[in-house]
Amino acid sequence: MVMKVYGSVLSTATMRVFAALYEKDLEFEFVPVDLRAGEHKKEHFLALNPFGQIPAFEDGDLKLFESRAISQYIAHVYADKGTPLVCEGKPMATVGVWLDVEAHQFEPLALKLRRELLYKPRSGMATDAAVVEETEAKLAKVLDVYEARLSQSKYLGCDCFTLADLHHLPAMTTLMGTPVKKLFGARPKVSAWLADISARPAWAKVLAMRNQQ
Amino acid sequence: MVMKVYGSVLSTATMRVFAALYEKDLEFEFVPVDLRAGEHKKEHFLALNPFGQIPAFEDGDLKLFESRAISQYIAHVYADKGTPLVCEGKPMATVGVWLDVEAHQFEPLALKLRRELLYKPRSGMATDAAVVEETEAKLAKVLDVYEARLSQSKYLGCDCFTLADLHHLPAMTTLMGTPVKKLFGARPKVSAWLADISARPAWAKVLAMRNQQ
Repeated sequence: MVMKVYGSVLSTATMRVFAALYEKDLEFEFVPVDLRAGEHKKEHFLALNPFGQIPAFEDGDLKLFESRAISQYIAHVYADKGTPLVCEGKPMATVGVWLDVEAHQFEPLALKLRRELLYKPRSGMATDAAVVEETEAKLAKVLDVYEARLSQSKYLGCDCFTLADLHHLPAMTTLMGTPVKKLFGARPKVSAWLADISARPAWAKVLAMRNQQ
Repeated sequence: MVMKVYGSVLSTATMRVFAALYEKDLEFEFVPVDLRAGEHKKEHFLALNPFGQIPAFEDGDLKLFESRAISQYIAHVYADKGTPLVCEGKPMATVGVWLDVEAHQFEPLALKLRRELLYKPRSGMATDAAVVEETEAKLAKVLDVYEARLSQSKYLGCDCFTLADLHHLPAMTTLMGTPVKKLFGARPKVSAWLADISARPAWAKVLAMRNQQ
């Protein structure tokens, strides 16, 4: 039975799962969830994710949700396929640190900026310039730490591309369409890392899915 | 060389690491970080955690930060000691989901309520009743999902106590000193789970450390 991803090609969390599946060269079926119709809050979807959020995932009789838990499952259970996205033993501890850095230091700021600079204007709401300024300043500090890390290590978790890098792609790519792009461009190591991981064929496939929408 | 935990006994993130170490019956040295003196922003601490946050952790020459990454390291690398806090293969995928539920669904609400109901009053600031009401309503919905989950499974991740339960203990215990306690008490399965995991000897040791402060 082929794996199923329930979600939206416009959702950064769903894109994270697609990226992991494409890196692993795994076949999957994409089942679009109609968010405008509130499908994610209906009974059949709540049976997949009781929190009513996308994505949800099925592999045979195993049902999972939370995008990072899904990508970790894919990376560990399909370890012998495609790109190795995790590593074993002590180096994995450091990958684990950077997985948590993405989730707790990077993404909350990225999503706040996305809301102010993309969602609000699209919905006819006013961007709060003070929130943007404050959040950009916080993101700049986070990216300073990334710049130092990427001066010592080719990728965030270790010298190989792992989930710790991959997890950044969806929200980071979204920010490239905003003035926040300058914060990445101003840092040479961050800039090179972003160019490198954005150029991965698996990520191009995710963007192609989104662009076909 | 004994493991070292740099942090504060009053920090929920530091307490999470202590709980994992006590569950594993591992010796460690606690190195208090003087937050009031801004020690966490000074050079020697930034060498341990470039984000300037507690806790930080050392095991020989391995330096880690982010409390959940530290506890995962302890659980995986010291798998043969004390309580098994993770499991192998497909069941671990579901533990992974509930690890992310704690981090993304539970803790942001718990910390917001802690700020309003404990930190603000202690600092002479006014609690924002509207924020409390809205956040309590969101937490109630999250706990409804927990109630359903704990009706099918003894613990959140699987039928054994794992990191997915342990990670909740620090913030959840803090909320027991606030009116938010009623949200847990109103749900029988959640209530029984909370009583069970709070009664673990390892957690009693963490509270004893805090109370000696």
